[in-house]
Amino acid sequence: MPRRRKPAPGCGPLIPPLSETARPLRQQIFERVRAAGQIARVQLAKELSVSPASVTTITSELIEAGYLEEVRTAREAEGGRGRPPTALGVRAGAHHVAGIKLSDREHTAVIVDFAGNLVADEAIARVPGAMDLAAILDATETLLNRICAKAGIVRADLSAVGLGVPGFVDSPGGIVHWSPVLSTRRVPLAAAATARFGLPVHIDNDANLVTLAELWFGAGRTLSDFAVVTIEHGLGMGFVINHRLYRGAQGLGMELGHTKVQLDGALCRCGQRGCLEAYVADYALVREAQTALNLTHRETQSVGILLESLYDHAKAGNAAARSIFHRAGRYLALGLSNVVNLFDPELIILSGERMRYDYLYAKETLSEMTGMCLNTGRPAPRIETHAWGDLLWAHGAAALALQEVTAGLLGPAREMAAQ
Amino acid sequence: MPRRRKPAPGCGPLIPPLSETARPLRQQIFERVRAAGQIARVQLAKELSVSPASVTTITSELIEAGYLEEVRTAREAEGGRGRPPTALGVRAGAHHVAGIKLSDREHTAVIVDFAGNLVADEAIARVPGAMDLAAILDATETLLNRICAKAGIVRADLSAVGLGVPGFVDSPGGIVHWSPVLSTRRVPLAAAATARFGLPVHIDNDANLVTLAELWFGAGRTLSDFAVVTIEHGLGMGFVINHRLYRGAQGLGMELGHTKVQLDGALCRCGQRGCLEAYVADYALVREAQTALNLTHRETQSVGILLESLYDHAKAGNAAARSIFHRAGRYLALGLSNVVNLFDPELIILSGERMRYDYLYAKETLSEMTGMCLNTGRPAPRIETHAWGDLLWAHGAAALALQEVTAGLLGPAREMAAQ
Repeated sequence: MPRRRKPAPGCGPLIPPLSETARPLRQQIFERVRAAGQIARVQLAKELSVSPASVTTITSELIEAGYLEEVRTAREAEGGRGRPPTALGVRAGAHHVAGIKLSDREHTAVIVDFAGNLVADEAIARVPGAMDLAAILDATETLLNRICAKAGIVRADLSAVGLGVPGFVDSPGGIVHWSPVLSTRRVPLAAAATARFGLPVHIDNDANLVTLAELWFGAGRTLSDFAVVTIEHGLGMGFVINHRLYRGAQGLGMELGHTKVQLDGALCRCGQRGCLEAYVADYALVREAQTALNLTHRETQSVGILLESLYDHAKAGNAAARSIFHRAGRYLALGLSNVVNLFDPELIILSGERMRYDYLYAKETLSEMTGMCLNTGRPAPRIETHAWGDLLWAHGAAALALQEVTAGLLGPAREMAAQ
Repeated sequence: MPRRRKPAPGCGPLIPPLSETARPLRQQIFERVRAAGQIARVQLAKELSVSPASVTTITSELIEAGYLEEVRTAREAEGGRGRPPTALGVRAGAHHVAGIKLSDREHTAVIVDFAGNLVADEAIARVPGAMDLAAILDATETLLNRICAKAGIVRADLSAVGLGVPGFVDSPGGIVHWSPVLSTRRVPLAAAATARFGLPVHIDNDANLVTLAELWFGAGRTLSDFAVVTIEHGLGMGFVINHRLYRGAQGLGMELGHTKVQLDGALCRCGQRGCLEAYVADYALVREAQTALNLTHRETQSVGILLESLYDHAKAGNAAARSIFHRAGRYLALGLSNVVNLFDPELIILSGERMRYDYLYAKETLSEMTGMCLNTGRPAPRIETHAWGDLLWAHGAAALALQEVTAGLLGPAREMAAQ
C-alpha cells in the first residue's frame, strides 16, 4: 500500500467547515479515539464498520504525525511489560485551544489541550448591556491574555480560539446577525477577532455551544445522536447526528425557539408572532408576572429577581403565578414533542439557567409531552436535565475550536494536498 | 496495494439498513455516478473531496464487479476513436428491481434497471377500503406477476422489491404501524411479503417514497439537501441530507403532519389535538366544507367530490369556501416556515394530489411563509410544486429497492466480509 507523505502538524491554514456528513475516515477515526479517551484498534474497526487493515494504516499515520499515541490500558499495566500496548489515545500536548463565552453578566474562558483536558479557567465580571465591536474585542483580548498567563503559555501557543455569543449567529460564515451583547447587527465577529488576535477564531451561538460541550465532553462519549434544548433568555436547540453537530442544510437551522406554535400568537422579541420562545422564555413569563404579582409598570424589577419572586409565589400557592409556569411548561412540552415527531431522538438534554424552575420538567410536563408524541409503540425518549453555567459554555467554545483544528489537520482538503 | 477479492454480485443476503451518514466511500462513489448519469473520475474526486487515486482504485473494483462501466461522452464520441473513454456510468443491466405503490383507488408498479431506467409500468384498479394482510399480499403478487410478464422477465430476475403504503411505517423495522389500506395495526409487512415472494421486500410510507423519487430521479441529481412536503389524505415530509434520506435518529421521524401548531387545537385523525394536518389535510377541509356548502349529514359525498365542489364554490366567490382554503393555506405556510426555521433547506418541493388546489401555494401563502421565517438576511428558500401521481410513488418504491440493493452490495458489512 503506498505510503502517504506525513502531513505537517499545525502549520497550514484552516480550511472552511466541512459538510457535516462527508468526513474522511481519518477524521472519523481521530474523533472516535478522542471521544472514547482510549480505545483498541479492533474496537475502532468494529464501531466504524471498516476493515482492521484500514484502521491500522490510518492510525499509524496519525501516530507518526503526532496526533495519537499508544497508551497502556489498566489491564495491560497490571499484566506487566511483556506485550506492546494495544489501545490508542489522543496526544494531549499536540495542541491547545481557548474557549471563551461572552455573556451579559461576565465573560468566561477555558484553555483545554488536544485531548480536551481542562488546563485553566478564568472569568471577568462586566457591566451588563450591549457593546460595540471594539469594546467586545478589548474585553475578549484582556480575558485571553489573562487565561494564557494562568495556563503558563503565550497566545501564539494556541492553535485556535472558540468564541461563544448569545443570539443569532451564522457560524460557518462567522457573522453575528444579532446578539444582546452587541450593539449593532450583522457583525463579522470571527474575521475581526482573527485579525485582532492573530489566531483563527470560530464563533457560534449558545445552544450550539452547549451541544458541542455535550458532544465532546458529555453525552457524545456514548451516544451518536441526541438533541439539546436550552432555555435562558431565549430557547435554543442543538442536534447531533452521527457524532456531528447538525446546523441545517445551509448552516442557519435548528431555530426551535422561533418555530410557530400558534398562528397570530404571542409577540416574540424577534418581531414575529406565535414563536415557541414567546411562550416559554424569560420575557414571556415576565409579561404575565407583573399581572400575577400585582406590580405596576414603575415597580418593574430585574428579570432575574422578578422570576425568582414569581417562582416563590408559585411555590407558596399563588394560583396566578402557578398558572404562568404551568402554561410555559405545557408549551415547552409541545415544543419537545415537535422535536420528537421530527427528529425521533433517543435522548433530549435540557439545559440552561431557567431549568432551575422545575415546572419545566415536572412529571406533568413530561407526561403532556408524551401525549403529544406520535404513538409509535416505543417508550418516549429519555429526558435529562444537565448542569449549565458559563463555564460549560466556554467548554463548548473550546470544543468548537478543537473541532475546527481537527478538521483543518485531517479534513479532505488536507488529505488531497498530502497526496 | 493489496487486491480485494471481488464481491459476488447479487448473491448475498441483504444487510440491515445503513446508518444514513456512515456510508463507505465505495457506496458514495457508486451513488454519485448513478445520480450524475455519467461523470468523469476527476469530477468524482472533486465532488467527494477525496484523492483521485482513491477514486481510480475504487471505480476499478466497481467496474470489475460489474456495477459500473466506462462510457463515451458526447464529446468523445464526436472526437473519434483515438482515446479511451474517461466517463463512468452505472451498468444498467446488472440488476432489476420492482417498485409497487398500494393505494385506496389502485395499485401501481414499475420495473427499473440498475441505472434507474423505466422498463415497464402497470396498474390494477381496486375496490376502496382497508384489506387484511392476506388480501394485500394476493393483490401485490398479482401485480408483480403481471408487470414481470410485461417486462419479459421472471420474478427471480428481480434483486428486490420496494413496496409503498400510505400511513405510519417503520421502514428499517419493516412494520406498518397504521395504514388506511390495512385493516389491522402493527403489520410486519416487509417480512410477510419477503416470505411470500421469495425476494427481499422493503417498505416505506408515501412522503419518503416521493422524496426518494426526487432523490434518485429528480431534484437529487443536482442538489444534496432538500425537503419534500406532500399533501394527500394526510400531510407528510421527507428530508434529504447530503444525498441521503434522513429518517430521524431512530428511524421514525419527519412526522411534520403531526407536529403541534396549536395547544389543545383541532382534532387529528391520529387522536391527538393541534396537529398541522388537522388544519391542512383533506379531512380538515371536509369538516368545514359541510358547513360552507350547507350540506346536511345525510348529503355527505365522497371526499374527492366534496373538495372539488368546495373549490368550485371558492372560485365562484363563495366567501365561506374561500375562508376554508385561506385558513388551510395559512397553516401550511406556518408548517413550511417551521421546516425552514429548523432545517434551513435551499429548496422545498410540494407534492401530492391536493396541490391541485392552488391556494396552497398562492402568492399570499408563500408571502405568509416568508413572514414567519426567521429573518436571516437571505432570500426565503425556493418553493417548487412538482408532479405527483401513483406512478411517481411507484418510482419512489423502486428507488427504495435500488438503495437497499446498493447498500447490500457495497455497504460496510460487505466490505468487511470481502477482506
